[in-house]
Amino acid sequence: METVSANECHGGTQWVYRHDALGTTMTFAVFQPPGDGPFPVLWYLSGLTCTHANVMEKGEYRRLAAELGLMIVCPDTSPRGDHVETHDDNWQLGGGAGFYVDATEPPYRDHYQMYSYVTEGLPHLIAERFPADMSRQGIFGHSMGGHGALICALKRPEVYQSCSAFAPIVNPSTADWSRNALQAYLGPDESHWRAYDAVCLIEDGARFPEFLIDQGEADSFLDSGLRPWLLKDAIQDTEIAVRLRMQPGYDHSYFFISTFMDDHLRWHGERLSQ
Amino acid sequence: METVSANECHGGTQWVYRHDALGTTMTFAVFQPPGDGPFPVLWYLSGLTCTHANVMEKGEYRRLAAELGLMIVCPDTSPRGDHVETHDDNWQLGGGAGFYVDATEPPYRDHYQMYSYVTEGLPHLIAERFPADMSRQGIFGHSMGGHGALICALKRPEVYQSCSAFAPIVNPSTADWSRNALQAYLGPDESHWRAYDAVCLIEDGARFPEFLIDQGEADSFLDSGLRPWLLKDAIQDTEIAVRLRMQPGYDHSYFFISTFMDDHLRWHGERLSQ
Repeated sequence: METVSANECHGGTQWVYRHDALGTTMTFAVFQPPGDGPFPVLWYLSGLTCTHANVMEKGEYRRLAAELGLMIVCPDTSPRGDHVETHDDNWQLGGGAGFYVDATEPPYRDHYQMYSYVTEGLPHLIAERFPADMSRQGIFGHSMGGHGALICALKRPEVYQSCSAFAPIVNPSTADWSRNALQAYLGPDESHWRAYDAVCLIEDGARFPEFLIDQGEADSFLDSGLRPWLLKDAIQDTEIAVRLRMQPGYDHSYFFISTFMDDHLRWHGERLSQ
Repeated sequence: METVSANECHGGTQWVYRHDALGTTMTFAVFQPPGDGPFPVLWYLSGLTCTHANVMEKGEYRRLAAELGLMIVCPDTSPRGDHVETHDDNWQLGGGAGFYVDATEPPYRDHYQMYSYVTEGLPHLIAERFPADMSRQGIFGHSMGGHGALICALKRPEVYQSCSAFAPIVNPSTADWSRNALQAYLGPDESHWRAYDAVCLIEDGARFPEFLIDQGEADSFLDSGLRPWLLKDAIQDTEIAVRLRMQPGYDHSYFFISTFMDDHLRWHGERLSQ
């Protein structure tokens, strides 16, 4: 593990590291709050085209994370590197578009194991190298990363005590902007996609106690890709609680994310401090 | 005036505009807090290499500015454009390095009138087009922009009710990284530089009631370019109050700025609400 940068911030430290993973070199960011810990760990999964850096620069999470004593870990959104198929001309496939699945199809299966990376590989490193209390983990994210957070929580409810999302893709199997990637990573048999789709997971019996979701009403991707009402439909007749807040005037940007960041941090803080 | 972008954020709107000024097209950002106004106006001047966008993305000012009802205006740091001498190979001269002076020397004098732009040209536009209370203005900034804020306040104490700075260049006439630019913009006669140098202005009789200054102790530019102690020396035997806070561990980055942003906003808010 190599330190890329370390910056004092709000009494804690914003770190960026590089390490060998997924057959390439992966970069991730960790905000360590002031104090000795061990700290609960809150995972932030970013959206399409992002790296670890976007939310680190624009997410405005450090002030309150420092106050609440939360360690924030921000992975990259895909493997990268000269030998990785990244499709730089396509923002919905390859680099920046890992969709948090474990690919089964060539050429992606060699590197695109993002689900295992964010739920196992990177957590092992965090547990080993940081003052982290891995018995208290939460997960959240934005858009494709909101999808990632929902599926991680639904697939591993024993690992995460809290989950929330900003404008998540709740049903990527049926969204135009994700179908192509799921087909490339998982093959044409759509039944294999269900294991990485929040709505399908719930239909197939996966459960998580409660989700907080903020969604901007002025989000240009609302109808085409996000459609949080499909999650509301899916949880009917289950004991899953969804607190879905439609936010008038807000779009899909980090201006939206940073506005509601505090609410999400408090949501996780309450559940991770128990 | 042309709208470049508008994003809802913290109940207000983060605007970016373009307009004709300085013989070219200038871009600036305005955060308008929620409500009808008129709002006090707080000017943020950015540092070397920055545009209006850096603090807009990384400064973390909107949450508290919305709460305090402050309009935040962020100008660019220099004229730009194909016909403007920008010296793209030199980060300390030309584009991104206007140093908030009115240049007298060719070829700069045609466009590099940043002092007039931030104290007259842009304020006139703000007064005309926004719900701004121009009788309540404060100014702050970072590094070169901290220098800009200090000289604007010292030169126009009747205009600004509050001034603060993050890691300001307090004495650019004697700092290696600014001497070259001052010579290019103002000519070799250093007596002409004194009108754009906070320490020299105070030596020459300029006054402002009080400054808040935060300075990171781990700032790699501290000794070579910033040297806030020179301002402390200059105010001896004057009635100027400087609250200089040396911050252990902090560097010159936006991680430093965003950490102390709230304190600066409260400083201005208290003085602008009266």
